[in-house]
Amino acid sequence: MTSSGVDGKVLRKKLNKVVLAYSGGLDTSVIVPWLRENYGCEVVCFTADVGQGVQELEGLEQKAKASGACQLVVKDLKEEFVRDFVFPCLRAGAIYERKYLLGTSMARPVIAKAMVDVAKEVGADAVSHGCTGKGNDQVRFELTFFALNPQLTVVAPWREWEITGREDAIEYAIKHNVHVPVTKKSIYSRDRNLWHLSHEGDVLEDPASEPKEDMYMMTVDPKEAPDEPEYVKIGIVEGLPVSINGNKLSPASLVSELNKIGGKHGIGRVDMVENRLVGMKSRGVYETPGGTILFTAVSELESLTLDRETIQIKDFLALKYAELVYAGRWFDPLRESMDAFMKEITKTSTGSVTLKLYKGSVSVTGRESPNSLYRQDISSFESGEIYNQADAAGFIRLYGLPMRVRAMLEKGL
Amino acid sequence: MTSSGVDGKVLRKKLNKVVLAYSGGLDTSVIVPWLRENYGCEVVCFTADVGQGVQELEGLEQKAKASGACQLVVKDLKEEFVRDFVFPCLRAGAIYERKYLLGTSMARPVIAKAMVDVAKEVGADAVSHGCTGKGNDQVRFELTFFALNPQLTVVAPWREWEITGREDAIEYAIKHNVHVPVTKKSIYSRDRNLWHLSHEGDVLEDPASEPKEDMYMMTVDPKEAPDEPEYVKIGIVEGLPVSINGNKLSPASLVSELNKIGGKHGIGRVDMVENRLVGMKSRGVYETPGGTILFTAVSELESLTLDRETIQIKDFLALKYAELVYAGRWFDPLRESMDAFMKEITKTSTGSVTLKLYKGSVSVTGRESPNSLYRQDISSFESGEIYNQADAAGFIRLYGLPMRVRAMLEKGL
Amino acid sequence: MTSSGVDGKVLRKKLNKVVLAYSGGLDTSVIVPWLRENYGCEVVCFTADVGQGVQELEGLEQKAKASGACQLVVKDLKEEFVRDFVFPCLRAGAIYERKYLLGTSMARPVIAKAMVDVAKEVGADAVSHGCTGKGNDQVRFELTFFALNPQLTVVAPWREWEITGREDAIEYAIKHNVHVPVTKKSIYSRDRNLWHLSHEGDVLEDPASEPKEDMYMMTVDPKEAPDEPEYVKIGIVEGLPVSINGNKLSPASLVSELNKIGGKHGIGRVDMVENRLVGMKSRGVYETPGGTILFTAVSELESLTLDRETIQIKDFLALKYAELVYAGRWFDPLRESMDAFMKEITKTSTGSVTLKLYKGSVSVTGRESPNSLYRQDISSFESGEIYNQADAAGFIRLYGLPMRVRAMLEKGL
Amino acid sequence: MTSSGVDGKVLRKKLNKVVLAYSGGLDTSVIVPWLRENYGCEVVCFTADVGQGVQELEGLEQKAKASGACQLVVKDLKEEFVRDFVFPCLRAGAIYERKYLLGTSMARPVIAKAMVDVAKEVGADAVSHGCTGKGNDQVRFELTFFALNPQLTVVAPWREWEITGREDAIEYAIKHNVHVPVTKKSIYSRDRNLWHLSHEGDVLEDPASEPKEDMYMMTVDPKEAPDEPEYVKIGIVEGLPVSINGNKLSPASLVSELNKIGGKHGIGRVDMVENRLVGMKSRGVYETPGGTILFTAVSELESLTLDRETIQIKDFLALKYAELVYAGRWFDPLRESMDAFMKEITKTSTGSVTLKLYKGSVSVTGRESPNSLYRQDISSFESGEIYNQADAAGFIRLYGLPMRVRAMLEKGL
Repeated sequence: MTSSGVDGKVLRKKLNKVVLAYSGGLDTSVIVPWLRENYGCEVVCFTADVGQGVQELEGLEQKAKASGACQLVVKDLKEEFVRDFVFPCLRAGAIYERKYLLGTSMARPVIAKAMVDVAKEVGADAVSHGCTGKGNDQVRFELTFFALNPQLTVVAPWREWEITGREDAIEYAIKHNVHVPVTKKSIYSRDRNLWHLSHEGDVLEDPASEPKEDMYMMTVDPKEAPDEPEYVKIGIVEGLPVSINGNKLSPASLVSELNKIGGKHGIGRVDMVENRLVGMKSRGVYETPGGTILFTAVSELESLTLDRETIQIKDFLALKYAELVYAGRWFDPLRESMDAFMKEITKTSTGSVTLKLYKGSVSVTGRESPNSLYRQDISSFESGEIYNQADAAGFIRLYGLPMRVRAMLEKGL
Repeated sequence: MTSSGVDGKVLRKKLNKVVLAYSGGLDTSVIVPWLRENYGCEVVCFTADVGQGVQELEGLEQKAKASGACQLVVKDLKEEFVRDFVFPCLRAGAIYERKYLLGTSMARPVIAKAMVDVAKEVGADAVSHGCTGKGNDQVRFELTFFALNPQLTVVAPWREWEITGREDAIEYAIKHNVHVPVTKKSIYSRDRNLWHLSHEGDVLEDPASEPKEDMYMMTVDPKEAPDEPEYVKIGIVEGLPVSINGNKLSPASLVSELNKIGGKHGIGRVDMVENRLVGMKSRGVYETPGGTILFTAVSELESLTLDRETIQIKDFLALKYAELVYAGRWFDPLRESMDAFMKEITKTSTGSVTLKLYKGSVSVTGRESPNSLYRQDISSFESGEIYNQADAAGFIRLYGLPMRVRAMLEKGL
Repeated sequence: MTSSGVDGKVLRKKLNKVVLAYSGGLDTSVIVPWLRENYGCEVVCFTADVGQGVQELEGLEQKAKASGACQLVVKDLKEEFVRDFVFPCLRAGAIYERKYLLGTSMARPVIAKAMVDVAKEVGADAVSHGCTGKGNDQVRFELTFFALNPQLTVVAPWREWEITGREDAIEYAIKHNVHVPVTKKSIYSRDRNLWHLSHEGDVLEDPASEPKEDMYMMTVDPKEAPDEPEYVKIGIVEGLPVSINGNKLSPASLVSELNKIGGKHGIGRVDMVENRLVGMKSRGVYETPGGTILFTAVSELESLTLDRETIQIKDFLALKYAELVYAGRWFDPLRESMDAFMKEITKTSTGSVTLKLYKGSVSVTGRESPNSLYRQDISSFESGEIYNQADAAGFIRLYGLPMRVRAMLEKGL
Repeated sequence: MTSSGVDGKVLRKKLNKVVLAYSGGLDTSVIVPWLRENYGCEVVCFTADVGQGVQELEGLEQKAKASGACQLVVKDLKEEFVRDFVFPCLRAGAIYERKYLLGTSMARPVIAKAMVDVAKEVGADAVSHGCTGKGNDQVRFELTFFALNPQLTVVAPWREWEITGREDAIEYAIKHNVHVPVTKKSIYSRDRNLWHLSHEGDVLEDPASEPKEDMYMMTVDPKEAPDEPEYVKIGIVEGLPVSINGNKLSPASLVSELNKIGGKHGIGRVDMVENRLVGMKSRGVYETPGGTILFTAVSELESLTLDRETIQIKDFLALKYAELVYAGRWFDPLRESMDAFMKEITKTSTGSVTLKLYKGSVSVTGRESPNSLYRQDISSFESGEIYNQADAAGFIRLYGLPMRVRAMLEKGL
């Protein structure tokens, strides 16, 4: 099903209006004319502010229109991002493959959700993104589109066009009057938001080589961090952080403030080789200063409020929760149902945790909770009323009964 | 069933010969006369060298005999401990409640196993230990006895006698000619072996208070650690460490060496509130310098050799594995079967990992493996033969099919 | 702490008033005078109607008072039992050790909860039950008491008194004017409620021997069942059954009605060797006619409404859910949080399932749901718009990428 | 990369020799000329005897050659299939989505493995199969090819050609001198092997409609089954069946014999809606008479030999094991490692189980094992030496300690 496009060119498919996830960089800028040319559609550029930095939003409307867009829509999603996406993951303890705090994974669905809303507002019949065919982000965008509006056509130009690299893209840009940034592109592929900054590419492609110090942007080298530790006290209500050193802050402000504190001490660098959803391994480096502090705080508080079996089940579900978020399945009833579990099980996770930040590491120095299951009167070496040591003999005999029976069997008793 | 003991006293039960887990400290020394008095038995003291420190073994035989023991048996279990107990846990990635590297949990079964052997050698019909009725160690000792020789009678004096504290014990000791140490007992309750040192008690009983710096013994304060990072390269074969910076070492020597290196940099301090098997919470501080380095190394190597789903299943089983070890169920077919899984799945975990130690933290700087599943030719931004980006479109459409169908249903499509 | 009881006898502990779980049988009747004698307390007998059969409730007050009770409280818990205990387990798919539908496990907490309420109403300071020290029920009663009112003293006579068997109990009964039933006690130990009937003891103690046909009470021998199948259609809303063949019924009525239908066809007999919480194995036979039909119906409906990964996670959690319920941990935040998951994930489990009952077996013949994810337009052999077969090639190549990479590595490619 | 084929037609890609999974039916017969025409290759047909029935193998060579094949290779894989694929799944207790005994899932890898061997023997550079792009089988074939020889090119004609249905295929067949069966194609899509027979399509496409009785081939209608039950005793060694009623049989013979016995009694029909790996739901009906008997037997024996926690972990892993097998990941280190677990944990699963077959249902009537952990001396109502009822009090108090502490906290105690 083809028809005639702007230049009389044969179209892949006729679309009316496309909402494009737009950053202003070369990668998404060249998509604007390409969509118009190949789908004969109007292009509405959409940029979400998820805390990637103010400078990236300046002059954007002009740029978008110069590239051929009919409109630029900008939305500030910072509070929604942290409150509705980041904090549930924090409460769940969701960490992907032992180390990754899911910074990009959580940002994609909030952006894609906003795109679906914008598509409705501007009457668009399609959405588009600038992700390559090798990464996780294409999956995260498209699954969110599927879940929230399956009628939208999804166009992923980097998977289907003939432009195969940066040189090609520049050439195409020049031919279509798209502004080409004079600043040389970074040797790293990066994604930044309020929660984290990720780095990929260049020397990182060899998992045996150490990242260069000048790559890092949110955290100082631990060697350059202050020589004195800093203590920070995180207040938590029902599994969600609410204050720093007693000052109540909105979710986004709280994370922003902790990024500064953590960054100053070189906290939250992660260097890992991870398994992407599309089946390949990749090596990435992440900076998540505030997030690292918060995950430690929430986990420590749980050590007071959750019992043994609960921690085991929660930790197992956290593995699955992280997997779903990583895989772009935010708007999946399975994640939502697991969230219902997490919300319920952390109802008593209220209190505060004091952490010491020093030269790249976070260590806990104190935890308090009105709901603490820790009782000094039970655990101390003194005998007490609630716990009778003689009970332990019976406990061990029954707990170990299957072992005794098995051993007796082996000995023919 | 009672009879007449040494002093004409009525016996709880007549035993012939008891093998006692003996440290030479007051807690186990007073047990010697008490067993003789209450069970009318000979007492064979047994001390395992699991790396708790040489000074603790000096003059021990004399002390034991002075307390009334007929014999002291000492066995060096260091290599067995590390090779057969520590390294399987390391390979399994077994960490209890997010932080505890199981130092004491792994030592109890190797000691209890040796006691069962000694009991056979000396013809004893019972075994005894000096654990209280509040801790995990009583369970770990007794479950091992159950599993390896269910016919042995187990005597746990601290659970059944009238001595209720240190003052009582000293009084009893003096009355029975047991040597009372002149050195004041530490304010902390400690357990040390080649893998770790644990601290409990005193100010630690308040989970809101920070441990004092003078408590630590295996690690320096990170603030006192060298100002320059140190790199260390761990060689690993099939999930088990074999070398440091290219030097092959026996299991015990390797851990011992890494303790020195890690301790110098303040590595491996853990402060946690944990759930004991007997149902209570307790707060402990652990020092595991070498172990912390090794867990990081093994995990990083797996990031090259294991795929996504394998890591998920392994991490789930690691939670269970840790739980079993913590609970004293080392000699349980379930742990052994899980170990068969771990052994098989880590067959390709061979290679080396380079780590940077600095002021209390370990970070990875490089990993290499002949079995690495990471391929730069797939993950790089260049297009390649093995991975075709166009395949991703089909992948996402089928992976997301249930989400699309659900969304269509909701929209009545 | 002892004092003087009714007969001037020295008391174990002085209690004021005890609420006793009372059935009217010998086992609980002898407890009444024993409690008064040993604890110097008043005894309030409590009997719950959980559907164990009307004849068991007749003349009960007279009997209780004759045994020395000051009062008998009877409560009809049938609807609460099914609605708040049975149906959540059904929705969760909770089956213990592959076969047991948890009939007794679910009844104990509803009874114990009512006892805590009665204790409050009558001002009692203790509760008591007639369970032995070998079974699961003591745990289920006592854990519920712990959770709902930890201040109540719990007395478990069969664990602490000198009466060791039926003969002893009869002798004690006669001495204390307790009515001894003339009917010979059944050779089986049974527990019956609206959901099921369990059998233990006698020939069942040999797991190699087949139960005798005359043991069964709720179900006919499949050989005696009708020669024609019967179809029954179960209506389900959000994972909970609401109707039979289109007739809406209350939870208890619905189960009661299905018991008749299922029982007539010999449905729901289970013969199993199970692992009790107290560490031993036991052999039991259960009859759960209505329950078996309902579990099949709910599971079949889910085959329409849940996707693959959701079923996997739900089935895993069902294993844990069943374990908690079996272990008496109904009023545990962990079970409650898992229930939040179950409630959320079954929100779309609405529809109906038709089942064929014949000679002991239940088989599904049809399922329907407005929320069905099954789409004939996708799964049929015809090609369609939503599913493009060409997509499968890309899907398989990426899904199988880790296998290809591993294989290439092995071949040195 | 194209070149010139047999008819001067432009080729998709030049292949030398292709090994085709060949059944002799229309679906795979038309592939022979199509491969030659489109890839310019020789075609070696391969047929595995996995117990699909003798008549299907007769006259096959002639047919294959008439279609243009250069050779037909037939291999009898029946014993290998049952011994190396079916029995490990049985030992693992692997059941997909509560009901499916994986008949087709286990057959695909044994066939694909043989094709890789044949490809090596005949010097082929490619393999091909007749699966559609909608099913699971394409994944199972191709993942096995990936794992065993990633250098083989895989051709899946039904995913890439223009033939879209049966009519098209017949037309193509006639044009290319391929024999078209005179017998009308069944209205069902079927797959048969020694373990099972599956049915899909036609009225089954409506999940609300009951299958017609004439569809079934391996099992009689339970209504037509004998009016007298039949008892069968299965002997098991280390989790694997070895004998029927005392007669030792090879794996394939044992299954074959049980199919007859079970089929006669209408055992093993399963009607289900399942989630395919490719994201869609489908409805299938399976007949697995012998398999149903064996799964029951193995599970019942485990009820004697495995303890509570072991059953829980095994059942969780069985869910994952089934998922991997269903998804075609037989030759995956993850499945192999899980198999190492299963092999180890079932080492004591030796003994026999007696089952009663009657009118479609299997029920256990007896289990025996030299390694049984069931002990009548513990579980009976008599008191004994190994189990002391008084121990239960201590057990419950410690087991319930977290619940008591939580409740005390709530009450401010």
